[in-house]
Amino acid sequence: MISFKEQINDIMKYGSPVYVYDRNTLKDRCEKMAKFRKDIEEKLKNVKVTMHYSPKANSNPAILKEVKNAGLCVDCMSPLELSLNKKSGFNNEDIIYVCNNIDKEEMKMVHDEGILICLDSISQVETWGQLFPDTDIMIRLNPGIEGVGHSEDVITAGKTTKFGITEANLDELFKIAEKYNLSIIGTHQHLGSLFLNNKIDDFVLGVKTGLDIIRKRFKGVSIVDLGGGFGVPYEPEENDLDLDLLAQKLEPVLTDFAEKYPTLKEFKFEPGRFIPCESGYLIGRVNAVKHENNIWWIGTDLGMNQLVRPSMYESYHEVTILSEEGEKEIVANICGDVCEGGDIIAKNRRVILPEVGDIVIVHNAGAYGYSMASNYTGRQRPAELMIDKDEIKLIRKRETLEYLEDNIIWE
Amino acid sequence: MISFKEQINDIMKYGSPVYVYDRNTLKDRCEKMAKFRKDIEEKLKNVKVTMHYSPKANSNPAILKEVKNAGLCVDCMSPLELSLNKKSGFNNEDIIYVCNNIDKEEMKMVHDEGILICLDSISQVETWGQLFPDTDIMIRLNPGIEGVGHSEDVITAGKTTKFGITEANLDELFKIAEKYNLSIIGTHQHLGSLFLNNKIDDFVLGVKTGLDIIRKRFKGVSIVDLGGGFGVPYEPEENDLDLDLLAQKLEPVLTDFAEKYPTLKEFKFEPGRFIPCESGYLIGRVNAVKHENNIWWIGTDLGMNQLVRPSMYESYHEVTILSEEGEKEIVANICGDVCEGGDIIAKNRRVILPEVGDIVIVHNAGAYGYSMASNYTGRQRPAELMIDKDEIKLIRKRETLEYLEDNIIWE
Repeated sequence: MISFKEQINDIMKYGSPVYVYDRNTLKDRCEKMAKFRKDIEEKLKNVKVTMHYSPKANSNPAILKEVKNAGLCVDCMSPLELSLNKKSGFNNEDIIYVCNNIDKEEMKMVHDEGILICLDSISQVETWGQLFPDTDIMIRLNPGIEGVGHSEDVITAGKTTKFGITEANLDELFKIAEKYNLSIIGTHQHLGSLFLNNKIDDFVLGVKTGLDIIRKRFKGVSIVDLGGGFGVPYEPEENDLDLDLLAQKLEPVLTDFAEKYPTLKEFKFEPGRFIPCESGYLIGRVNAVKHENNIWWIGTDLGMNQLVRPSMYESYHEVTILSEEGEKEIVANICGDVCEGGDIIAKNRRVILPEVGDIVIVHNAGAYGYSMASNYTGRQRPAELMIDKDEIKLIRKRETLEYLEDNIIWE
Repeated sequence: MISFKEQINDIMKYGSPVYVYDRNTLKDRCEKMAKFRKDIEEKLKNVKVTMHYSPKANSNPAILKEVKNAGLCVDCMSPLELSLNKKSGFNNEDIIYVCNNIDKEEMKMVHDEGILICLDSISQVETWGQLFPDTDIMIRLNPGIEGVGHSEDVITAGKTTKFGITEANLDELFKIAEKYNLSIIGTHQHLGSLFLNNKIDDFVLGVKTGLDIIRKRFKGVSIVDLGGGFGVPYEPEENDLDLDLLAQKLEPVLTDFAEKYPTLKEFKFEPGRFIPCESGYLIGRVNAVKHENNIWWIGTDLGMNQLVRPSMYESYHEVTILSEEGEKEIVANICGDVCEGGDIIAKNRRVILPEVGDIVIVHNAGAYGYSMASNYTGRQRPAELMIDKDEIKLIRKRETLEYLEDNIIWE
């Protein structure tokens, strides 16, 4: 945990707002995933288990390097994510390209780079086959049961999702694969984002459902990718995901499959949020305090452009205000500097009445924070810092106005 | 209107997806606003009427220059927006800084640049007064009645909004202004985003409510800014906002105020969306077509990173697919390439079954399109083109991978 009281002045030298990551927490979460991987692998005979971190949660190379250091792998879904993965030290065999609705040019790039691709629809398999017959592919399965997710928007399996191929269409898939002599060497499924302990059984059921389909319908698959969705507690009353319990509940399902499905060589998982989320903080300042219509508003520089989750998904983020002094407790809405009514980071929070200039810390901002940030209302995206005990290291510069004007063609 | 059939190949040379703006439509909307301004001004004796376009809708300098050419002014709410305004030819007296929860450094910049500021809370007025006593300011009023808006998130007046100062707190405001010898030379109000003909009466009522408060409580104000919110029809059954009807209904309210409030010199309005929205299109390609669980999905490169409105506000955008051939009509969801279930541009649309490679055109993408775009999942933001009949002009380059890696500090 960062010592905000002592380090805050040094942190704020990089401008406000600023994203900071605590290296110790980040390393801990990487190690937890590494242990989960190892625990499962030890239970399975001759089946490898691989964890591919998803950089869409946070693609800063300093994060990717910690993932690499912990012996984990990565996925990616765009040329930039692939480039960052490679520059952060991952080899081709550590990377899978798990994409959705990409064009031929991008397929060509993935093929030429020699990265294993996971295709999301029969239509994409057909396009790939036309371009690259006689190759190996993975395909994304929609196991058909309802997914799990923190909001309807991020559920990625079930009857009404855009993702994957359902069991009913597998004959069509196999026909297309045969037509182009494509080997389906792996399957992938992903049930959605952010499950915690109360959803472990749903997750395991989703895994079992997928594995049953594979056993029944697929011949000779060697890789089964079970996706991610490993959650973190955002709200104070939530508990950490119990990875031991998850491993324990998954184990009989995975063992059973491995015993009965002889070509299986590897299970993959794709944790995203779990790895960087809790290490990250978005830090800004109180710029105004107002009391109107019997509501307290704390106005900050932490707009929906810097962290969109609360505005977009009504997501909960814990917020701490470092007040120099003050004793009066209030219940307040904490909002940003964007001209939209929905630009609110946190609603109805019990805080000590702050003063203009006080520091505001948004917790659990390490995942889907910077990666979803925009320049809406002309705001620069902030600097990113990695904090390793006493050491503060700049890992991405704050955008400058010149940088943001760089692509404009002036008449 | 752009001739997509003829120009599409030249347009797609700039990469897919791409934002294009039709200069004729843009000019038409600027002229409509200029006429609205003139019509109202002619009805009022010795009171100026000024239109300040809000670049948060679209801050590309090519758009700003058309606004300038039509004799309109601008607002801004960040250093970048101010910079773009100035570089696009606006003088200080054409610009107002209508901000929300800004810090001292930014206030200093606005002051030193000599731009008139509109402050949003008593707290911000106090901070400004400490820094710059004896200066002129505008303040944002919350007239207290419910705002108007296309979604609860963009309603910006009423009892539960973060914006403005309510009537109940005006004594406190005047005390702070007096303490620092600040002259409140103007008031501002903004009821929310996107009203159409069925909300004209609500808008006029909001204006009247604000004006009544000013008449009753403010002495010597010379500028009254009535904000924006002028809507455009997104859905096919909606009609254009009837600006003549709006002017006609506003006129008695404004005339009455002007007659009874002798210090008034100027009414201001702040149109945003109205000006660029309908001129803009986001154009991409069909990369996959699938039929799963009895639902048709058209997979494109038009993700929520390129246009966030449908995912964020469930906004409706008209979509056209340019199909080479095909006759089969389907009802489909049109989605993007982002790994989120909510990454859907358009739901349940009746279209001709397209083929991979077909062109997809999202309409009304000129406002809150590029300005809210992000690099989520590592996607580059697209090029922007201005189309003037036959001429296609690049007005912003597509981001490159190098550009997106430019601020990273590598270990």
